[in-house]
Amino acid sequence: MPKQELLNDVIDALCCMPGVGPKSAQRIALHLFQRDRGGAENLAKVLQKAVNKLGLCKKCRTLSEHELCAICANSERDLQTLCVVESPADVWLVNQATDFKGIFFVLNGRLSPLDGIGPDEIGLDQLEQQLENSPITELILATNSTVEGEATAHYIAQLALPYKIRVSRIAHGVPVGGELEFIDSNTLAHAFSGRRDIA
Amino acid sequence: MPKQELLNDVIDALCCMPGVGPKSAQRIALHLFQRDRGGAENLAKVLQKAVNKLGLCKKCRTLSEHELCAICANSERDLQTLCVVESPADVWLVNQATDFKGIFFVLNGRLSPLDGIGPDEIGLDQLEQQLENSPITELILATNSTVEGEATAHYIAQLALPYKIRVSRIAHGVPVGGELEFIDSNTLAHAFSGRRDIA
Repeated sequence: MPKQELLNDVIDALCCMPGVGPKSAQRIALHLFQRDRGGAENLAKVLQKAVNKLGLCKKCRTLSEHELCAICANSERDLQTLCVVESPADVWLVNQATDFKGIFFVLNGRLSPLDGIGPDEIGLDQLEQQLENSPITELILATNSTVEGEATAHYIAQLALPYKIRVSRIAHGVPVGGELEFIDSNTLAHAFSGRRDIA
Repeated sequence: MPKQELLNDVIDALCCMPGVGPKSAQRIALHLFQRDRGGAENLAKVLQKAVNKLGLCKKCRTLSEHELCAICANSERDLQTLCVVESPADVWLVNQATDFKGIFFVLNGRLSPLDGIGPDEIGLDQLEQQLENSPITELILATNSTVEGEATAHYIAQLALPYKIRVSRIAHGVPVGGELEFIDSNTLAHAFSGRRDIA
């Protein structure tokens, strides 16, 4: 039995991370315990703390250690525009890349009936309550441009219909810096139908 | 401030692992806390346990949770042949790939005077004691085939000289399955000078 049990446990445990297989896990474990024990200890502590404390923001369902996340707790955000995204990572991306100053709603998933993920699993009941009770005037649907993402956006648009608010979907088209030659025909068709006048 | 502090701490802590940068760390953190909280908790616990318990084997200096590692504690190993390797990973590799049944000595490094790593830092004083007091008849030097690895092997060979034991170095040559066309000239020269009679 060449491997040590405890080191083996570490290697197995590391494999729970996406993109880390047995080989990288072994390399990581050896690095940590040969050269960076402090890093390993810190990682263990921070992970344990996060497991104990991280939950979902009561209002927007993003990952948060507080009852309200930093954005929902920020009184300077515009409460009239609500952006719906699939995951907490998308919140960061939209915040970094755009000048969007409104609030978010995180689905933590997408509609996928075959996997048993229906409207309630992605918090749409909670979203509907907000549409009813909050002063929202525009709903921006920023779900992914996949089949499930589109279906989810469509479902939410239907959901918002009775509340007579503006519902928009982020644009499809040629990525900035992209060459037409390398764009798939579906995207190019979207780019054409979504063309805008040059002022 | 879009990111949450605690999640940020997790992302920073994950970056201590080799091959994990800020982007993968973010992906890993979100995966763990959206989909595999159990995995995160297990990882935290196992890492903490390993930080507390993992040390070096008293005899061979490999990573071990016990005073003696599984190999040193195994009474069926041949105590007369000692294989010197640079890291605990090499112990596993040699054990898996070869029919070597002797014992190991792990340097946990290599001689590198410029980095302040001398004989004592890689445990050569301890190795010399073993050469003096143990029934070792052959010393197999399986350090890496790098400049530092070769220098270390040479140094240890000199160290073993007074004890009149057989000292061998693992062979250099063409990797099995390799084509001559893609082998560097240095390796090919070694393969020629190290040629063996076909029985």
